[in-house]
Amino acid sequence: MPVPYKRVVGSPVVGDAAGWLGNLERRARLRAKAGLTRHLRPRAAADGVADLAGNDYLGLSRHPAVVAAAASALRGYGLGATGSRLVRGSTEVHAALETDLAGWLGTQRALVYSSGYLANLGAVRALTGPRTLLVSDAHNHASLIDGCRSSGAETVVTPHADPAAVGAALAAAPGRPAVVVTESVFSVDGDLAPLADLHAVARAHGAVLLVDDAHGVGVLGPHGAGGVAAAGLAGEPDVVVTATLSKALGGAGGVVAGPEALVRHLVDTGRTFIYDTALPPAVAAGVRAALGVARAGDDLRAELADRAAAIARVCGGAGLDVTVPRGGVVAVTAPGPEAAVAWAADCADRGVAVGCFRPPSTPDGSSRLRLTVNVGVPREAFDRALAVVVECAP
Amino acid sequence: MPVPYKRVVGSPVVGDAAGWLGNLERRARLRAKAGLTRHLRPRAAADGVADLAGNDYLGLSRHPAVVAAAASALRGYGLGATGSRLVRGSTEVHAALETDLAGWLGTQRALVYSSGYLANLGAVRALTGPRTLLVSDAHNHASLIDGCRSSGAETVVTPHADPAAVGAALAAAPGRPAVVVTESVFSVDGDLAPLADLHAVARAHGAVLLVDDAHGVGVLGPHGAGGVAAAGLAGEPDVVVTATLSKALGGAGGVVAGPEALVRHLVDTGRTFIYDTALPPAVAAGVRAALGVARAGDDLRAELADRAAAIARVCGGAGLDVTVPRGGVVAVTAPGPEAAVAWAADCADRGVAVGCFRPPSTPDGSSRLRLTVNVGVPREAFDRALAVVVECAP
Ligand SMILES: Cc1ncc(COP(=O)(O)O)c(C=O)c1O
Ligand SMILES: Cc1ncc(COP(=O)(O)O)c(C=O)c1O
Repeated sequence: MPVPYKRVVGSPVVGDAAGWLGNLERRARLRAKAGLTRHLRPRAAADGVADLAGNDYLGLSRHPAVVAAAASALRGYGLGATGSRLVRGSTEVHAALETDLAGWLGTQRALVYSSGYLANLGAVRALTGPRTLLVSDAHNHASLIDGCRSSGAETVVTPHADPAAVGAALAAAPGRPAVVVTESVFSVDGDLAPLADLHAVARAHGAVLLVDDAHGVGVLGPHGAGGVAAAGLAGEPDVVVTATLSKALGGAGGVVAGPEALVRHLVDTGRTFIYDTALPPAVAAGVRAALGVARAGDDLRAELADRAAAIARVCGGAGLDVTVPRGGVVAVTAPGPEAAVAWAADCADRGVAVGCFRPPSTPDGSSRLRLTVNVGVPREAFDRALAVVVECAP
Repeated sequence: MPVPYKRVVGSPVVGDAAGWLGNLERRARLRAKAGLTRHLRPRAAADGVADLAGNDYLGLSRHPAVVAAAASALRGYGLGATGSRLVRGSTEVHAALETDLAGWLGTQRALVYSSGYLANLGAVRALTGPRTLLVSDAHNHASLIDGCRSSGAETVVTPHADPAAVGAALAAAPGRPAVVVTESVFSVDGDLAPLADLHAVARAHGAVLLVDDAHGVGVLGPHGAGGVAAAGLAGEPDVVVTATLSKALGGAGGVVAGPEALVRHLVDTGRTFIYDTALPPAVAAGVRAALGVARAGDDLRAELADRAAAIARVCGGAGLDVTVPRGGVVAVTAPGPEAAVAWAADCADRGVAVGCFRPPSTPDGSSRLRLTVNVGVPREAFDRALAVVVECAP
């Protein structure tokens, strides 16, 4: 190429295009000053740690039936799906899982994605045309926010869990197609969206209600069918459900569940479905076995509710500021990002894993510990872990 | 809610918000007329089909060492990672895989994602600031295009594999940070990007070169280290590599590989990394075993090249219009979308799976069969399958 090399001012090394590495390093130093550096802490298979941090609410990731089903499909199919769903990646396991998911969630159809993140991107996009108004809850998950952003549609962010604000946003755009976007159990604070009221408002304005039931499926509702089912909205023609297969179902992957016409549309046109390698068959098989256990798991859900209540009681009793548990997630306020990190580190030193949420992962800029219930942790270990969290509090 | 129900004109059922289902059904009928309906065809574990459709280039999805490593991690860790990488999802398997990937690809660091799709979204976003210019090849994969779109940055789409056009685009934006975005082996036609020329142009203008090596890793370069390594660009400070773990490595997941500062930036700020459940440990373990086999697999790569050449020779000899194979992907032109579907269906009836690519999956609006090499298919079965493709040609 005849273009001469132009040395950019401030560029420290050849190949450090426009000083991009220097720029990244400067930004890393700013984050370090603000206490916002993150560290990966790889765990061993048997680390003896009490899990109050993950999303394996029913403990199904290690359930013998789940592991056996995954191992069997691994032997039969090999590791990867070897292609996208439409080319070579659809197996009988995927089809059976989709049938079971639709039956459980009470929808006409269900479509499995390789992650909940890509399922959300796909669902928001599929519901969005050039004139669509998106009305998105202020506490929504990053994948829903990215879905709204990348759809290119006008998006109104409404105050958290506020059906009246949603109604006002819809009323201000009469005659336009609209989608109300919310989680069911919110991922950071564990509170519930007012789904029945949101649906009434949406229907009154002819809008679709899109619910990310990631933290509700397996945990809430009849047979664990989720927050949408608990609100009596399963199968409504103007409700679309997304969920992950990576939390209560103990595996990985995502799902979009709703009317037949929506799933057909996603198969024909959904970019994050069409252009993505399918979920590994072994994972799909394990998740399907987990679905069977979760569906019959009222005992697991009773234990989960009991433990979540214990978190609120013990932490609240120790004078900590704690959210009211609705599912398997409880948040405890920390004084600031560095205090939250130190608190979580002290717990880790004593063999207890807790979630540590700081900006930008918290919806309001505050910091907190997130405590989650994993029914697979023995009860005595759970109770001891809870005592450790309180003892380590700043 | 006091808002009265407004019946929208044309809305066929209560709850069919603004006729959204009717609208989806109308669009489905239009696609059907245009021959653009897609169908999922679930396969059984042992379907006896000769695979000329998937991306399991080296046949590693069923390699005994891969399956054994995955099974062992499945027993040790259970099925899912049970959390995001920063919360509970990082295991020693993920860390070991990242070390091996960086060593293999020749970069300072590597970061594993749950899919190549999310890795691409994350990489483009991380390289993009408010003033950044993205220069994107016209044939780029949907995940790269979505990355450009969702970054919000100005994007210039340049003609396919055209370094001069890239240079002109960069020259038209002097002083602005810029990223040149390309695949290495293009996914539909199997042709190679002019990586050395693109890098020279990028460096001359102080731009970063982002290469999606999804179809190059395992297939091209010394020890299969990919198209970037083959072009002599491994470890350059202004080159960022992404890849999937779902193709030659036979598993699932994605990776971003590059300078330390980039990976630190992704861990601290990358939304599709932070807010996504980690790849299942069993999948990471299987992929790591596959990496070992691929790295030592010059024999597998020789067989792959031989078969790709056979596809071009046999199809070309039969008068079909076929691309020149550079890796494991060869495209054969079809007269139109319906002819392509019929051709692929005839092959399937005779036990041969081929890829069928129609708009919008083809970069130029034409339709074609995509034939891929899977070294795991016995050679006689491969040769027979190739004959079937020719016999079924329209
Ligand atoms: C509410 C919510 N939606 C979506 C996701 C993304 O799902 P996945 O991790 O399967 O990509 C998550 C968490 O990861 C979540 O908490
Ligand atoms: C070039 C290219 N990039 C990215 C991807 C996405 O990777 P994954 O399937 O792991 O999401 C694919 C294929 O699926 C691809 O062909």
